[in-house]
Amino acid sequence: MSDVKKVVLAYSGGLDTSVIVKWLQETYNCEVVTFTADIGQGEEVEPARTKAQALGVKEIYIEDLREEFVRDYVYPMFRANTIYEGEYLLGTSIARPLIAKRLIEIANETGADAISHGATGKGNDQVRFELGGYALKPGVKVIAPWREWDLTSREKLMAYCEEHNIPVDFANKKKKSPYSMDANLLHISYEGGILEDPWAEAEDDMWRWSVSPEAAPDTPTYVELTYEKGDIVAIDGEPLKAHEVLEKLNKMGGDNGIGRLDIVENRYVGMKSRGCYETPGGTIMLRAHRAIESLTLDREEAHLKDQLMPKYAEVIYNGYWWSPERRMLQAAIDETQKNVSGVVRMKLYKGNAIVVGRKSDESLFDESIATFEDDAGAYDQKDAEGFIKLNALRLRIAAGKGRKQS
Amino acid sequence: MSDVKKVVLAYSGGLDTSVIVKWLQETYNCEVVTFTADIGQGEEVEPARTKAQALGVKEIYIEDLREEFVRDYVYPMFRANTIYEGEYLLGTSIARPLIAKRLIEIANETGADAISHGATGKGNDQVRFELGGYALKPGVKVIAPWREWDLTSREKLMAYCEEHNIPVDFANKKKKSPYSMDANLLHISYEGGILEDPWAEAEDDMWRWSVSPEAAPDTPTYVELTYEKGDIVAIDGEPLKAHEVLEKLNKMGGDNGIGRLDIVENRYVGMKSRGCYETPGGTIMLRAHRAIESLTLDREEAHLKDQLMPKYAEVIYNGYWWSPERRMLQAAIDETQKNVSGVVRMKLYKGNAIVVGRKSDESLFDESIATFEDDAGAYDQKDAEGFIKLNALRLRIAAGKGRKQS
Amino acid sequence: MSDVKKVVLAYSGGLDTSVIVKWLQETYNCEVVTFTADIGQGEEVEPARTKAQALGVKEIYIEDLREEFVRDYVYPMFRANTIYEGEYLLGTSIARPLIAKRLIEIANETGADAISHGATGKGNDQVRFELGGYALKPGVKVIAPWREWDLTSREKLMAYCEEHNIPVDFANKKKKSPYSMDANLLHISYEGGILEDPWAEAEDDMWRWSVSPEAAPDTPTYVELTYEKGDIVAIDGEPLKAHEVLEKLNKMGGDNGIGRLDIVENRYVGMKSRGCYETPGGTIMLRAHRAIESLTLDREEAHLKDQLMPKYAEVIYNGYWWSPERRMLQAAIDETQKNVSGVVRMKLYKGNAIVVGRKSDESLFDESIATFEDDAGAYDQKDAEGFIKLNALRLRIAAGKGRKQS
Amino acid sequence: MSDVKKVVLAYSGGLDTSVIVKWLQETYNCEVVTFTADIGQGEEVEPARTKAQALGVKEIYIEDLREEFVRDYVYPMFRANTIYEGEYLLGTSIARPLIAKRLIEIANETGADAISHGATGKGNDQVRFELGGYALKPGVKVIAPWREWDLTSREKLMAYCEEHNIPVDFANKKKKSPYSMDANLLHISYEGGILEDPWAEAEDDMWRWSVSPEAAPDTPTYVELTYEKGDIVAIDGEPLKAHEVLEKLNKMGGDNGIGRLDIVENRYVGMKSRGCYETPGGTIMLRAHRAIESLTLDREEAHLKDQLMPKYAEVIYNGYWWSPERRMLQAAIDETQKNVSGVVRMKLYKGNAIVVGRKSDESLFDESIATFEDDAGAYDQKDAEGFIKLNALRLRIAAGKGRKQS
Repeated sequence: MSDVKKVVLAYSGGLDTSVIVKWLQETYNCEVVTFTADIGQGEEVEPARTKAQALGVKEIYIEDLREEFVRDYVYPMFRANTIYEGEYLLGTSIARPLIAKRLIEIANETGADAISHGATGKGNDQVRFELGGYALKPGVKVIAPWREWDLTSREKLMAYCEEHNIPVDFANKKKKSPYSMDANLLHISYEGGILEDPWAEAEDDMWRWSVSPEAAPDTPTYVELTYEKGDIVAIDGEPLKAHEVLEKLNKMGGDNGIGRLDIVENRYVGMKSRGCYETPGGTIMLRAHRAIESLTLDREEAHLKDQLMPKYAEVIYNGYWWSPERRMLQAAIDETQKNVSGVVRMKLYKGNAIVVGRKSDESLFDESIATFEDDAGAYDQKDAEGFIKLNALRLRIAAGKGRKQS
Repeated sequence: MSDVKKVVLAYSGGLDTSVIVKWLQETYNCEVVTFTADIGQGEEVEPARTKAQALGVKEIYIEDLREEFVRDYVYPMFRANTIYEGEYLLGTSIARPLIAKRLIEIANETGADAISHGATGKGNDQVRFELGGYALKPGVKVIAPWREWDLTSREKLMAYCEEHNIPVDFANKKKKSPYSMDANLLHISYEGGILEDPWAEAEDDMWRWSVSPEAAPDTPTYVELTYEKGDIVAIDGEPLKAHEVLEKLNKMGGDNGIGRLDIVENRYVGMKSRGCYETPGGTIMLRAHRAIESLTLDREEAHLKDQLMPKYAEVIYNGYWWSPERRMLQAAIDETQKNVSGVVRMKLYKGNAIVVGRKSDESLFDESIATFEDDAGAYDQKDAEGFIKLNALRLRIAAGKGRKQS
Repeated sequence: MSDVKKVVLAYSGGLDTSVIVKWLQETYNCEVVTFTADIGQGEEVEPARTKAQALGVKEIYIEDLREEFVRDYVYPMFRANTIYEGEYLLGTSIARPLIAKRLIEIANETGADAISHGATGKGNDQVRFELGGYALKPGVKVIAPWREWDLTSREKLMAYCEEHNIPVDFANKKKKSPYSMDANLLHISYEGGILEDPWAEAEDDMWRWSVSPEAAPDTPTYVELTYEKGDIVAIDGEPLKAHEVLEKLNKMGGDNGIGRLDIVENRYVGMKSRGCYETPGGTIMLRAHRAIESLTLDREEAHLKDQLMPKYAEVIYNGYWWSPERRMLQAAIDETQKNVSGVVRMKLYKGNAIVVGRKSDESLFDESIATFEDDAGAYDQKDAEGFIKLNALRLRIAAGKGRKQS
Repeated sequence: MSDVKKVVLAYSGGLDTSVIVKWLQETYNCEVVTFTADIGQGEEVEPARTKAQALGVKEIYIEDLREEFVRDYVYPMFRANTIYEGEYLLGTSIARPLIAKRLIEIANETGADAISHGATGKGNDQVRFELGGYALKPGVKVIAPWREWDLTSREKLMAYCEEHNIPVDFANKKKKSPYSMDANLLHISYEGGILEDPWAEAEDDMWRWSVSPEAAPDTPTYVELTYEKGDIVAIDGEPLKAHEVLEKLNKMGGDNGIGRLDIVENRYVGMKSRGCYETPGGTIMLRAHRAIESLTLDREEAHLKDQLMPKYAEVIYNGYWWSPERRMLQAAIDETQKNVSGVVRMKLYKGNAIVVGRKSDESLFDESIATFEDDAGAYDQKDAEGFIKLNALRLRIAAGKGRKQS
């Protein structure tokens, strides 16, 4: 363990990662660089500076990555209408590649030879951090304290704090919750506690970002989202940066009880786990993106996107953002978004994000052809006969040869 | 046109198909057999008998196919969590194969050499009827009046009625609506009218099966759905047949404002069209089925199902139910449903169908492994290191050789 | 039929398309522009000029498209290791989009409002020409004489020639064969005649581009192919243009009895047909491309390419080169080819194209890790245990819960 | 290490696994049960009995599994036309699930709590053995000596033999080769030695099962293979069991220089490796199966099979035979094979396995429709116009709206 000289730690400023700072210094006898990022988790990041200093850290990185996070990670992912296992919007998964990238960049800047994080050995996040790290700096040493140390209970952790003079008020007060939580601009997640019983309904006071549908206003909110090349660039006509869009939609969605989700999911490490998620803005964005695509995408590219999406979601969920297969899929997805521009009108009401209108200069909807009224020859109904007969030909031949069709 | 002796017509009893009866008799100088089925469209089918008799039809088939429809078509489709283009639950598509099958069976019974239907030359339904017909009886003659005749406007149709003494009250009174509609136990659909402008919001009085979320009760309804091998067999503990399940869920969903959908979709014949759908029971079923699968399916079979689903949906939407590729996909899907048994608890509230609990004797959720508490050695966190390092190996090698990863 | 003013015809200079020139002039009373291209079919194209002039054609296009054909169509297709139905290298399919594109460009240059071709109503080529035409000029009128006229037998065609003074020596002498053939730089195809019986072995004198394996030299030929970004740029160290590469490989392959294929394939129009193909250079290229990719592609992008390939092949076979889905797939494929550079060494011998060596500066093959000898710690075998145990976790949980695994 | 009481070892009778017997007895102080199977590797298995006895083994299993191997593993795999990474016929991969299954069954019979094998920590085989073991007996203990011990060089191994009185003539004499080899009825594989340089051509004297194409007879061999439901049941009219088929085809193929392969492949553990394979019978079978399918499969099921195949191959290669996803894919594949019956005629000549004819009572090839001659109305060429126009509709609309198509 003597071969690590300097390690960059993903540091939240909370109790656990503060313990890790100390444990790394002691166990590896190395210098610790802390990296704390604002990715929209809704807590001040600046206080992490004093705490890190108190722990003897000399190189402290505190950064506002909200715009980069939404623009370069969330937005590209939403271009694919990405959902994991039919339900999950990948709120945690999509934040990890950015953290991994900054950990490595900071390691390169500071001459560190290792990185470290506070994720446990049972979850997906360790995988995401470490795959990213290895992909971007193949020789990096990764230290995952939760897989190594023996501080395996809250009591042992507290004893360690006392022994090492780590102020216990480093513990995040807001997190005095029975749940394991994670938050960023895209979502907040809850695991553990009574959620470990999949039959138990989540308690209403668990949720933090949204009111319940019951508590939401009795009148709907309408909103217009303007898309350019697959990304939202304005809300109700007001141009906004990527993270401002998501902040605003989170507010609107949360106020209207939108975006709560309660699922059992399959982790990459092989177990099922139960999680609850609040993704107010993302829930609106998913629906809206499909709506603008419904006007502007060709049918076959839309269907091909749908067939590739589960794989793309799996790649991100499993932690392979920094991989050739993700870039390959992204190239295909981005190729389709050139004309995904226009406006979607939505109605938000008590948990519902309803598309009520969509329009686009790039629309492929052809009213003159689709109409139930006289189409003035735009479409020749007689063409359908040949279309059907040749599409049926293989079936007719098979049936004619006595093949059973049912 | 003289070569048709007898034709079986999918006959609704409405004005359009009544005109078709007469037109077939005149144009093809042939006998017409009518076939009218109750598939849960919510209208009496028996009145079709008198109308058909009045038109001189001698062989009249009127059948209650509700149970067969849900059991053999809707249920198998829901085992795949089938959605077309991310939104549409295929309510119209899934009813057509059954109609096609009965048309052919009746043709065989009555010695008819042709079948006919009232679908237009622009839509998907003509394709679905005819592909089914050709697949099941390759030599059948198909007559699609809307592609052949010149009764291309409401005025011409009315003139034809008058000329041929077809009582205009054959026109379905309930359908005095500006929309083209289609209904069965799974859904009711709306097209045409102001919906031809994708920017226009659907009028609230268009919807027939559900109240608006706003008008739904202020208190939620809870319901428990019991699954056996992927299909719902009981509601709140009461065993029900397939069609009874759907009828009950339609009522519960509709009462709670659940299942409205407003989309632009891509038709198989090549155009985009705007449609609104009410699928109250189906919307609940989709969510519930995913929930019971989340406990009982292995991860990899679940992911493979998700990758195959868009193709399966496309096959059904395009009218290829009676095809080798549908059977092939069904075999894969059904193979996975052997253990999809258990109970899902849902909360229905103002448009929301929310999963709040799920349990199963076949559950693969392992609390002892997933727990955030001490797992007593059920899972060795150290295994994760090797797992990650070998999964990262190809990325590390590439990065080590200087490959750009971002 | 009076609304066509000028039509651009894909004109081979042979008898059939000469009849079409005359038939178009007569039937549509329109001007005909002929377009004849050298795409490596192995016949002079210049003689088409005199013939067209003799038929009264004023605007005559004769072009050498060999380089463009291989560079912009064949090469991109081979980047995907494209094979249709496990066997067919798409030699005919890939030439059609280029012809369609030039037909439309010439129509635009000459102010023509229609295009025409000599493909029959049973085959794939009509689809490929016309889909391309419609995609590039949506309002174009397409005339497919074989679907319209009554010259349905050789006798009627000859009678028409006599009647209209079309010299019968316009008939392609080389094609005095019982087979329907098509050739370009990628392949020559044979259909019809005794091949219509799938049990009948093709006669040895049918084949034109290759000797039989039996007749090939008794000593092997070795060749080295240099790749840059997925394309061959040099043979045995000599830099060559795309079409020169293919010409040279056709010669080498043909001399060594390589590239004969005899299959039954599924046409897009719904029937099965039996075809024989000679693709000497393409057969070598496919093997070689896979070999250079085996060194330079990441595993997951390679596997994803393999999963997408059948769809990509289908898109091309069916005639959708000029489509959003082809561009989407191409974007994914091309993204993977950035590092597909290096040299493949092959042995050509009596029908066999054998890879015997491959090397690359971009190689991801890591001898120090792969070795059976001492790897000096490059790979820690103990990592495999965790890798396997976590990959097995879902299976162990399922088995532990009593799930049947066999 | 004291908790293992009895371990079942996959025992070849060779030197390495003999050392493992001793090492297991010493290290774990446990009883060893040996299991030796004839799966067509071409060596006597009975001698393993005396060797095991000499090592003090009391429970010795020696079994002829050739028929089961081909019938229940090789044949199902070939129904899918399975190839890994476009080249590899999975000869090693497909034998492992059977070995794993027997190891577990014997463990259950003998009351053993552990299994062991002689695969190294770098390869795929450890994964295949262990995934199978865990899937079939979740609580089994797996011992992989190569990942645990320090006998990491040939010298140390020999020293261990001397020290423990293991006769060195246990070393497989036939294997006095510079290559690491593995053989069963489907193939023999070679790795290591000079093959670790991917640019080096394999030496001709490495190959054992086939003559070189150069050394093969100058006259071709014709053979007829009879299929029933996707499997070969007779050769040249003579009914044979599955393993007899493969034995005979191996002989015929090997005699004609068929089935040599030289590739670089991607291992599941993350590295590339170079391997050479001889698969004479399998190479013939793959071609023949595609040929009989070309007559008897519907187009869409054939294409869907092709799209699923790479995934199926990956599942087997990675060791997941005993998994829900393999069963799911197998269900889809087997559903398609009901009509895959008939006869394929092949010509074997100097490395070439050429299909020259195929016939079937279940043929979907319709000569009356496919013919270039007068088809007497079996196919109406005019249908093609509507077919093309509707297939082009989406492209025409897009182009009409100004979308760039190239």
